[in-house]
Amino acid sequence: MNSFGNNFRISIYGESHGSCVGILVDGVPPGISIHLDDFIIDLERRKAGKPGMTTRVEEDTPIIKSGIFNGFTTGAPLNIQFANSDVKSKDYEKTRSIPRPGHADFVASKKYLGFNDYRGGGHFSGRLTLALVAAGVIAKKTLPDIQIHAELIEAGGLMNIEEAISNAILSKDSIGGIIECRVKNLPIGVGEPFFNSLESMISHLVFAIPAVKGIEFGSGFKAVKMKGSEHNDSILDAEGKTASNFSGGINGGISNGNDIVFRVAIKPTSSIQKKQTSLNINSESMEEFVIEGRHDVCIALRVPVIIEAATAIVLADLIKFLK
Amino acid sequence: MNSFGNNFRISIYGESHGSCVGILVDGVPPGISIHLDDFIIDLERRKAGKPGMTTRVEEDTPIIKSGIFNGFTTGAPLNIQFANSDVKSKDYEKTRSIPRPGHADFVASKKYLGFNDYRGGGHFSGRLTLALVAAGVIAKKTLPDIQIHAELIEAGGLMNIEEAISNAILSKDSIGGIIECRVKNLPIGVGEPFFNSLESMISHLVFAIPAVKGIEFGSGFKAVKMKGSEHNDSILDAEGKTASNFSGGINGGISNGNDIVFRVAIKPTSSIQKKQTSLNINSESMEEFVIEGRHDVCIALRVPVIIEAATAIVLADLIKFLK
Amino acid sequence: MNSFGNNFRISIYGESHGSCVGILVDGVPPGISIHLDDFIIDLERRKAGKPGMTTRVEEDTPIIKSGIFNGFTTGAPLNIQFANSDVKSKDYEKTRSIPRPGHADFVASKKYLGFNDYRGGGHFSGRLTLALVAAGVIAKKTLPDIQIHAELIEAGGLMNIEEAISNAILSKDSIGGIIECRVKNLPIGVGEPFFNSLESMISHLVFAIPAVKGIEFGSGFKAVKMKGSEHNDSILDAEGKTASNFSGGINGGISNGNDIVFRVAIKPTSSIQKKQTSLNINSESMEEFVIEGRHDVCIALRVPVIIEAATAIVLADLIKFLK
Amino acid sequence: MNSFGNNFRISIYGESHGSCVGILVDGVPPGISIHLDDFIIDLERRKAGKPGMTTRVEEDTPIIKSGIFNGFTTGAPLNIQFANSDVKSKDYEKTRSIPRPGHADFVASKKYLGFNDYRGGGHFSGRLTLALVAAGVIAKKTLPDIQIHAELIEAGGLMNIEEAISNAILSKDSIGGIIECRVKNLPIGVGEPFFNSLESMISHLVFAIPAVKGIEFGSGFKAVKMKGSEHNDSILDAEGKTASNFSGGINGGISNGNDIVFRVAIKPTSSIQKKQTSLNINSESMEEFVIEGRHDVCIALRVPVIIEAATAIVLADLIKFLK
Repeated sequence: MNSFGNNFRISIYGESHGSCVGILVDGVPPGISIHLDDFIIDLERRKAGKPGMTTRVEEDTPIIKSGIFNGFTTGAPLNIQFANSDVKSKDYEKTRSIPRPGHADFVASKKYLGFNDYRGGGHFSGRLTLALVAAGVIAKKTLPDIQIHAELIEAGGLMNIEEAISNAILSKDSIGGIIECRVKNLPIGVGEPFFNSLESMISHLVFAIPAVKGIEFGSGFKAVKMKGSEHNDSILDAEGKTASNFSGGINGGISNGNDIVFRVAIKPTSSIQKKQTSLNINSESMEEFVIEGRHDVCIALRVPVIIEAATAIVLADLIKFLK
Repeated sequence: MNSFGNNFRISIYGESHGSCVGILVDGVPPGISIHLDDFIIDLERRKAGKPGMTTRVEEDTPIIKSGIFNGFTTGAPLNIQFANSDVKSKDYEKTRSIPRPGHADFVASKKYLGFNDYRGGGHFSGRLTLALVAAGVIAKKTLPDIQIHAELIEAGGLMNIEEAISNAILSKDSIGGIIECRVKNLPIGVGEPFFNSLESMISHLVFAIPAVKGIEFGSGFKAVKMKGSEHNDSILDAEGKTASNFSGGINGGISNGNDIVFRVAIKPTSSIQKKQTSLNINSESMEEFVIEGRHDVCIALRVPVIIEAATAIVLADLIKFLK
Repeated sequence: MNSFGNNFRISIYGESHGSCVGILVDGVPPGISIHLDDFIIDLERRKAGKPGMTTRVEEDTPIIKSGIFNGFTTGAPLNIQFANSDVKSKDYEKTRSIPRPGHADFVASKKYLGFNDYRGGGHFSGRLTLALVAAGVIAKKTLPDIQIHAELIEAGGLMNIEEAISNAILSKDSIGGIIECRVKNLPIGVGEPFFNSLESMISHLVFAIPAVKGIEFGSGFKAVKMKGSEHNDSILDAEGKTASNFSGGINGGISNGNDIVFRVAIKPTSSIQKKQTSLNINSESMEEFVIEGRHDVCIALRVPVIIEAATAIVLADLIKFLK
Repeated sequence: MNSFGNNFRISIYGESHGSCVGILVDGVPPGISIHLDDFIIDLERRKAGKPGMTTRVEEDTPIIKSGIFNGFTTGAPLNIQFANSDVKSKDYEKTRSIPRPGHADFVASKKYLGFNDYRGGGHFSGRLTLALVAAGVIAKKTLPDIQIHAELIEAGGLMNIEEAISNAILSKDSIGGIIECRVKNLPIGVGEPFFNSLESMISHLVFAIPAVKGIEFGSGFKAVKMKGSEHNDSILDAEGKTASNFSGGINGGISNGNDIVFRVAIKPTSSIQKKQTSLNINSESMEEFVIEGRHDVCIALRVPVIIEAATAIVLADLIKFLK
């Protein structure tokens, strides 16, 4: 189902080339001041139009349809909606006959018996992450003392991200990247044993973001080459500060008072300018084709703020359990 | 909360040194034949007592307290319980004053205000994964046509696992490992867009398993060094078979008819025989100590069957949506 | 939280005097034909403007913002929205100082620390039932073989409903009523033992409708004066047809193949034209006042179609479990 | 599914003639003192063996399998189990061929394809309410300042309950009753708008109790004969005290600071000593039969404490939202 969370619950809707995308945000405490300005920075970080990004540029102005009164949250659900305007649907007609490799076109058509809105990926489009970012803005405002920061630390295998982007643009291909997210000032005790562990909840929401291929916390995959004697984080004081932070700030699924640290692998954008070969489901033969439409050379550039949003939403949900 | 799933729902309970551990399994269709023999192979794979594993060896005989009648599931919830018998609680008295680095001792004490059962990690103990494996056996029986197989493919940075274990035993230290899980014969369409994506659900449950530090699907973290033109899996036929499988069998969160493939990073066991230094919360000074009790040198040896169980539980839950 | 259902899930939003009210409907199967005409009959039945009803008359045209493509459901969530236009907010200024007896004004102000949108009851307004009716239309379309019919069978203690309304209008007071709902052709087996019994689910959603004071199934409160020998419904054939239907078509929480029958008590509208006395929370003294605004003399007239919607939503949710 | 609640969650299991019945209680705060003595009064109130009740008398000693350490809750789930011992299964063989009118035998057999445990009603048995009462004891302990009291106020249509029982025993028939429940000292603000209204949640759980046919809050079904001017409860002071309490302590689904009052209709026990006629599903002909086994003449006698338990569980769940 298209909702997430028990106490701070989001429900997403909309399609890439429909009239809008949007999100319901329920469980928001009353009395939080919300202005359109609050959304600007985060929406701008996700926005396209910079080098390496698609040239489809939407206004992306949030319209809050409910849950706000006189500039403050009321305790009722917020419905935040974004109109779609810069839509070029005819670019996508071809995806009906040749499902784009690496996209949801094929599975969506099968799962929904051909009734899915295929234009621009429909409900599977990365455009819906716009709504996630908006919900993240609300979530962050409910967590005033906690700092969440994500950034792209590697693209196309290089630490020099500008260089990687330039190369990829020249080669008319796409590249992936690694995003690191760090949460500071989270109190001890956030997360539940077993099924609602902090890692479980964060990874659940992070894997809802298109193009994510992996996630690791603290030492992550490097842990498998370490000894226990190296990996164990000695506790230094009564607040739980540790000498190292291989645990990524989490023990037994619960925040331990140190920084939460995790990294996310983003695959190279599936839509590329290069010629590809795949099945034409009408002719049932392999066919060469070029994807029309406007796409990102490195979608990973736009994902950090989405990762932050996902993290904030999870924390807003789990912190309510803590109380 | 200690439950997972909407249509096939598990609820876990118990403590390492309490009277038992167990699990409720709800949403099981009626008419599935269940015998105690069905549990033997999977429970044996998780069992300790082999090289690299703890010497705490329990009988691990499942007692089905409800939901079975005349050898078949009834449609009512199964309660599967395991008695604890080989318990040496006094080994753990020390963890009250020196929370073990890498364990949940410290956070559990903080979160539960000192009321948590600290013996052997209590409700946070890896012993509860016994109950997960039992639920996995039930889940697998609801999925007769699907093959799920997980195995340890690397330990302590080596492909030769026996050698890695021997080295670790000699050094009185612990090591981690990588487990690969592969699902064959899953129909197209399992998983939901956005929040209940197949990756979201699998990672959610996999991170509920103690010692997991990372998960990656298909190409995973390697994707970040690939070009889109390499990474895209060309579709070859109307059943969705692809030339490569960098997607790990999932597009847009939904199974695409190819093998599901993912890898999980397991950290080195936190409990080691070596001397460590950490805070004594009573004296508020750093102290050298050695962990008593019996522990695994490479817990990753016992985890593959738990990963399989988690995968089967997720699939049993999601496949009901498909119908 | 403002959502209901596990497999067919609705999430409601909006305020009486905000920009709109609306509802997300998730879990709708793909391929169901939806036209605006489908909504007309049910929305008309709920509409005001007839004798005994408020003179606030909205256009009540549903705007489907997502989840429909080329006239069919896509499998993605539907967002159905209704604009508010005929709004006279200044009528409600008085409710800030004198919370209206029988309304949510007082509790909403306390619960939401004064941040609630008090205009016209805000998120607590009966206007949100418009969204429920719209979701009910969708639910009914997923249940083509099942007939759900509710009607007002008693108003102000009289069977002659027109007479009761006329009397109430003359007396400038309001009256309540009893609604009976009957479901025909429901297959055996809908409903789950214990917590998701058919009665549990129906009553849950019915009590979400403002002004509902009671619900009874089959014999209902009359059962308490009957003997077991009278009350037991003899089974007559292999399809479960019973000689009598005191059970209301449900045994052990599960449909038994006979008509589902239940009755709902609706209180007299709280907003009346007569002078009332209640606390002025600013002056902290009792005060006489008259409620401005436009209100229903007998809100029960408009509720049958809402009861049908609630019933259809519950059945759409539970029937998915059956599969 | 067999679980209820989001923050205080119960999951029920077991069968009447299986090895046990029991319940998981999750979301219990740590540090609550729990002794077996705490259960005595409530379990005794539910216990059989008094006039009008079945002669099946079990020990009903709760065994707490998890979640308690040194006499206090730990924050981990409690598993409370009751052994079945006084079982006479052969009495129930007949229910295989003649499904008992008014019982779940017929629907259970259909829904679960004949695999249900039919002995004594199996998972549908009233014996599972024992587990509900135990969970209610825990819930009540989390609500130390709130008084919940339910009692039988009418049986077989008479206020003199002893007389009604005597008559029913003499006539070898069964009778129903009305239970009134009252909650004192509940703070303002418990309950959520729309779908988790206090009435929605209470009725949901109350209808999970076998034999319940109706529920009404405050004025209930009497409201339909009242005028709005009579029914409105004038607010008297800043704490929300009202002159009358026709609302039953709830406005807009939310507690208003006055007593919560509701009444529940219990049908006459379906199992009676008298001869009945119903379908023999094997011979497919109508047949006279007498129900063997031991049954209650007036099950309503034992239900008040179960209603209290249901109420306490709902309040424990909703109050967590309030924080």
